[in-house]
Amino acid sequence: MAVDLSYSDEVLDLVDRTRTFIGDVVLPLENLHAGDIEAAGGDGLRRELNAQAKAAGIFAPHAPVEFGGLGLNMSDRSPVFTAAGHSTFGPVALHLGAPDEGNVHMLAHVASPEQKDRYLQPLATGEIRSAFAMTEPAPGAGADPNALRTHAVRAPGGWKVNGVKRFITGADGAGMWIIMARTRGEPGDRGGATMFLAPADTPGISVDRYVHTYDRGMIGGHCEVTFTDVFVPDEDVLGEVDEGYRYAQVRLGPARMTHVMRWMGVAERAHALALDYVSEREGFGGKLGDLGMIQQMVADNEIDLAATSALLTRACYELDQGRHAANETSIAKTYGAEAFSRILDRCVQMCGGLGVSEDMPLARLANEVRPFRIYDGPSEVHRWALAKRAVGRARKERDAGVKHV
Amino acid sequence: MAVDLSYSDEVLDLVDRTRTFIGDVVLPLENLHAGDIEAAGGDGLRRELNAQAKAAGIFAPHAPVEFGGLGLNMSDRSPVFTAAGHSTFGPVALHLGAPDEGNVHMLAHVASPEQKDRYLQPLATGEIRSAFAMTEPAPGAGADPNALRTHAVRAPGGWKVNGVKRFITGADGAGMWIIMARTRGEPGDRGGATMFLAPADTPGISVDRYVHTYDRGMIGGHCEVTFTDVFVPDEDVLGEVDEGYRYAQVRLGPARMTHVMRWMGVAERAHALALDYVSEREGFGGKLGDLGMIQQMVADNEIDLAATSALLTRACYELDQGRHAANETSIAKTYGAEAFSRILDRCVQMCGGLGVSEDMPLARLANEVRPFRIYDGPSEVHRWALAKRAVGRARKERDAGVKHV
Amino acid sequence: MAVDLSYSDEVLDLVDRTRTFIGDVVLPLENLHAGDIEAAGGDGLRRELNAQAKAAGIFAPHAPVEFGGLGLNMSDRSPVFTAAGHSTFGPVALHLGAPDEGNVHMLAHVASPEQKDRYLQPLATGEIRSAFAMTEPAPGAGADPNALRTHAVRAPGGWKVNGVKRFITGADGAGMWIIMARTRGEPGDRGGATMFLAPADTPGISVDRYVHTYDRGMIGGHCEVTFTDVFVPDEDVLGEVDEGYRYAQVRLGPARMTHVMRWMGVAERAHALALDYVSEREGFGGKLGDLGMIQQMVADNEIDLAATSALLTRACYELDQGRHAANETSIAKTYGAEAFSRILDRCVQMCGGLGVSEDMPLARLANEVRPFRIYDGPSEVHRWALAKRAVGRARKERDAGVKHV
Amino acid sequence: MAVDLSYSDEVLDLVDRTRTFIGDVVLPLENLHAGDIEAAGGDGLRRELNAQAKAAGIFAPHAPVEFGGLGLNMSDRSPVFTAAGHSTFGPVALHLGAPDEGNVHMLAHVASPEQKDRYLQPLATGEIRSAFAMTEPAPGAGADPNALRTHAVRAPGGWKVNGVKRFITGADGAGMWIIMARTRGEPGDRGGATMFLAPADTPGISVDRYVHTYDRGMIGGHCEVTFTDVFVPDEDVLGEVDEGYRYAQVRLGPARMTHVMRWMGVAERAHALALDYVSEREGFGGKLGDLGMIQQMVADNEIDLAATSALLTRACYELDQGRHAANETSIAKTYGAEAFSRILDRCVQMCGGLGVSEDMPLARLANEVRPFRIYDGPSEVHRWALAKRAVGRARKERDAGVKHV
Repeated sequence: MAVDLSYSDEVLDLVDRTRTFIGDVVLPLENLHAGDIEAAGGDGLRRELNAQAKAAGIFAPHAPVEFGGLGLNMSDRSPVFTAAGHSTFGPVALHLGAPDEGNVHMLAHVASPEQKDRYLQPLATGEIRSAFAMTEPAPGAGADPNALRTHAVRAPGGWKVNGVKRFITGADGAGMWIIMARTRGEPGDRGGATMFLAPADTPGISVDRYVHTYDRGMIGGHCEVTFTDVFVPDEDVLGEVDEGYRYAQVRLGPARMTHVMRWMGVAERAHALALDYVSEREGFGGKLGDLGMIQQMVADNEIDLAATSALLTRACYELDQGRHAANETSIAKTYGAEAFSRILDRCVQMCGGLGVSEDMPLARLANEVRPFRIYDGPSEVHRWALAKRAVGRARKERDAGVKHV
Repeated sequence: MAVDLSYSDEVLDLVDRTRTFIGDVVLPLENLHAGDIEAAGGDGLRRELNAQAKAAGIFAPHAPVEFGGLGLNMSDRSPVFTAAGHSTFGPVALHLGAPDEGNVHMLAHVASPEQKDRYLQPLATGEIRSAFAMTEPAPGAGADPNALRTHAVRAPGGWKVNGVKRFITGADGAGMWIIMARTRGEPGDRGGATMFLAPADTPGISVDRYVHTYDRGMIGGHCEVTFTDVFVPDEDVLGEVDEGYRYAQVRLGPARMTHVMRWMGVAERAHALALDYVSEREGFGGKLGDLGMIQQMVADNEIDLAATSALLTRACYELDQGRHAANETSIAKTYGAEAFSRILDRCVQMCGGLGVSEDMPLARLANEVRPFRIYDGPSEVHRWALAKRAVGRARKERDAGVKHV
Repeated sequence: MAVDLSYSDEVLDLVDRTRTFIGDVVLPLENLHAGDIEAAGGDGLRRELNAQAKAAGIFAPHAPVEFGGLGLNMSDRSPVFTAAGHSTFGPVALHLGAPDEGNVHMLAHVASPEQKDRYLQPLATGEIRSAFAMTEPAPGAGADPNALRTHAVRAPGGWKVNGVKRFITGADGAGMWIIMARTRGEPGDRGGATMFLAPADTPGISVDRYVHTYDRGMIGGHCEVTFTDVFVPDEDVLGEVDEGYRYAQVRLGPARMTHVMRWMGVAERAHALALDYVSEREGFGGKLGDLGMIQQMVADNEIDLAATSALLTRACYELDQGRHAANETSIAKTYGAEAFSRILDRCVQMCGGLGVSEDMPLARLANEVRPFRIYDGPSEVHRWALAKRAVGRARKERDAGVKHV
Repeated sequence: MAVDLSYSDEVLDLVDRTRTFIGDVVLPLENLHAGDIEAAGGDGLRRELNAQAKAAGIFAPHAPVEFGGLGLNMSDRSPVFTAAGHSTFGPVALHLGAPDEGNVHMLAHVASPEQKDRYLQPLATGEIRSAFAMTEPAPGAGADPNALRTHAVRAPGGWKVNGVKRFITGADGAGMWIIMARTRGEPGDRGGATMFLAPADTPGISVDRYVHTYDRGMIGGHCEVTFTDVFVPDEDVLGEVDEGYRYAQVRLGPARMTHVMRWMGVAERAHALALDYVSEREGFGGKLGDLGMIQQMVADNEIDLAATSALLTRACYELDQGRHAANETSIAKTYGAEAFSRILDRCVQMCGGLGVSEDMPLARLANEVRPFRIYDGPSEVHRWALAKRAVGRARKERDAGVKHV
């Protein structure tokens, strides 16, 4: 046992090949369509890029090997997902974007063998996409998941689900659904949720509209969805009844980290773009990149990237040890999301008028990373959870007679 | 002499009427078109709104009374422009937006009687719009105005202007131009610029393309423009030859402040929207607006708005005393532009998923204010100028034998 | 009515004379004793300096004219107190420091004619100092004044006060006391406090110990005090029984602002010291003051000083109009206290090793301003109050049917 | 090869024993003397504590095993030094403080066998302390080491050193010196420095005065020193002539990291103290630790501690791989130093009046960590170095034809 922060040659090679693929194939497409994946072709484009990624041996690095993936653990995913994230189309191209990657991860851990065959197999191979239906419009489940209002009641041979969801990423065109619904208690109660699997053509699932947002790189929108008497047979209950919040945790920790990995790619790319610009742009009697205030922004980007990476490494290691890692993932997520906003903001500022224009992709990349401070738990909720645990720890120490002096 | 921070009843009444007009007439149009003034009708819409504003007695509050304006000084402009700025279409509706307002201000101070008749009269009344052609693509005049490369050479009876400009706001459809060109020295030299007036149909003026940016509320784009042998007769030289930088200063100080006033309106509106949301939205066992971390964002917005307002008041007072107020306007501009970004960011964060969606206007308003940290001099350039003056002052004190202990 | 930010010639002259006195007489003493007013002579020094200040015609500029002061309103106090604050001994020298200045202010507003003769007269003239006994150790009145536990019960011809206080500034050597005690309700209840006046030799007042703090410029310590059956006759009740919180507000708004004024002097002085240093210190091939990262710190100081000053001007104007100005004083206090910490921190950083050494006064001045983020209400409490009012306002608007769009 | 962030049982046990020793033996002494190591006994105390640490088997964990140390690499030092740093007397007690620890590290790498016997042996065992004489008063070597003015000229059988140094930690009472002097070129030139070893009784070494600073935990002061014709024989030249800057780098990277480790202990302790306080202190109708604004400070401390730790882990790993790790150590040092200031500031704020008082150690611990943003290279110099390397890298990529899009 000794600290080791190296990656195997296989992983390093995979990172290289991913970078090449992103640079040669994906980035040109993204720029051509100003980062709008739907405008660029949506699911048609996705299938083409998935096929090319498979040919390049870099498809779905996180998916189980038995379903055609590369079976990487969290630590090894990190540099690969970041390389893919250099293009906002990269996650779709390699089929490692939200919510599919998190759904694959959770199904691999929780699904029954039959569910794996029926749902995980087509999802992991990219035959279909998926949706994870948890968030609801006010006053339902949002930053506070206990507010869950969508409910399921027993029906012969299964359950009937009713409710309204919002910000359901990838809903339009999803081939399968994971639906979070209350099976016990009232909105506001802790616990009592169950996860249900459903094919897209299940009667009663209605994708009502897109909720358009700052970001444009996810396929299938962030949609408003209504479930009206959606019938789910018992065999499509994921795991145990009433244990949905527990599985959500299985999913959310790693899903947060893969979000960090992917958006790290955006931040690295923006930093490289800004560096390239200031290293040559003239002004005030020299190059911008040699001016102190610009140097400060450059250095702060370097520090923010390094700190996010270091926190991500720590969180992935803990997850790979089988730990819940609630603190570590909250910290890496919160720090990373805020760092990415700062980095993109500095990059825009360093490039001046060009930075806020469409002549460079920085303005739209800034819009792409902004929502991450809200998605997957707003920074405030993570801070609240971190503080609650810390204060609780202090109270236990007090009760145990520990003195701090 | 005693500190007085009150406004006259006439100004307060004008503010009220402006608010009413913006709320009843302008905001609905802005929201209908998601803040895209071109999509909403461009110059056609402008003429309609201008007519209604005239009817309401609130048109062009800054323009000289002799040309149909209300003749307000800077201090009195402040609350009126802010009221107009509550809608991103407000400045166009009241004809007090950039660059027209600044051009009217400068022409009123510098133009000859003949130039006033020919250029200021139609501009002040809204018959035409205008462009101010100063900024150039790299390596020309940008944050560093001394890098000016567009040049004018003597020609019989006047001057011939050649050069390329970029980010020329309102260029497309402008009825008149103010062109900054070098008449002495080389790019990088201090001084040596002259301002030229030109009607839109002057041969050799070519608006080549829009440089699309984050913001969508200014009419006529931020354009790339080429001047090819543009002939300007001697009578259309604005003020004295070689004194262009001096007039630019006459224009820039007030123009910076009116930018602050207008964007202050956006910030106030966003704050009101977010307050309205958190005051009622439930979560974590209560209303969001009663949670400490949300309260902190609310309070920081209140502080940022108050500080910007107080700095603006100071700068306007100094300008109204006939002072150059370089420090005061740099400080109010820099603080304000950064405060607006912070405020919009907090408002987005307070509203969570809705904040980053098009269901609320906050995401696009955040994009609307972001460029102000670059327009009219990036924050870094203002800080550099502030520091140069402060350090220079310290050196003079040292030379004069002043001791600090 | 029109915005006016000028001072009368009388005030400007008073500022000049104050600066001269501070520079010639007070600063050398402060530096000689490393800012420790007790070590420098305590009350003995105070009396000497007060006599000199009287001779210079600058003593107690805030005190009523009838008691030998200059009778300045809040607006006019501002530049004078700031000039005095350039030395941490200045407030003692001019008798305008806490808590005396605030006590004079409150007595002038609330005391009966007899109380003025007995208490205000000797206090205003500097014959004695005073203490304001409000803050208590946990779980008593601190940031939350409603937690008040010191109580007074009726006794023949007056009241008996019992309780413990902490952080009572100037307690050691105070000639008179203003004691806040509960006369109704329980700790935690709103209202129900009364203010009692008491001479220093009243039996039962015990100054138990100094609570040593970061700051060293206030005379008489921040002390722990016990009141044991302190008898106060009815004629020494200040104002009405049970109205103590209301009078505390009368005192606190202005007292907060004069704190800002005084510490502004410290911040201005530190900025001048750091500017003087970086303007000449060589490093990295030039002067430090010409390096971008130093320029950024210089400019941020300039911005922070200007913003504090502008907010202070606004708050003082409102107070002078007879308004409560709760928001304005909270904002100026919170912004100012945080700005002073930032400014001192930047000054220390600009001066490097010297900045953290006793070869310059910056390290101790940083310690002098730090507590202001806690004294007179921690920043968090002011933010909480600001947010409560803002959210309450939004709720009223909602109830009134106002729509924000 | 795979990411591993675990420590061996031996290291974990050493950490435990270090914590116990610090808590039982060292912290009580520190608190008794308000953190002033000289007042607590200086070198006499050091010898006593060193003896106890040896008895506990925790003395000098970084020193070579052959000289009685535990021979830990950088990664393993990290948790041990942090445990020692919980008391500001801990580094002296375990003989792992600056500058001794860095000097031991450098001598172990660079000294000749004879030099090791003569200098490293007594230093590693704690028989003597040492000084590292590099920093000079203006205009000499400070943040910019190339400004070195102390110079050495050839003398028969050795060198004669002349010059003035400042902020020489531990100078008073040091048993040996490492002196950096210019042997080639002029002040401002890159390179040309040599390191000289000298016993304390070498004629011409004069410790002139203490430069008192914010921090009180280092023994032997931060002194001003004059070297007058100090003769150093050839055998006491450390390594090669003119290679001093290179050896300084050998020393500085690890020395920066051990600074981070030690001050991390202070930050952890302060955080634990503040948590203990807010977890029980009542206010505003509940416990402070359950209020949102306090929770935000708690969470930000957790994030800052985690990020510093993660960056430190990365930098130590790189150093242990034998790499120069200039970026990694600059980032960990800069982030850590700034984080510690933020953490201490939040802890003070959370504890209110007590936080700024001597009733808790927070105010003095805040003063203890503040200078680290200046010591070992100010943050600005590290940012400048980081930016220079980043911009240089970008220029090389440009030259190599790399395109960023």
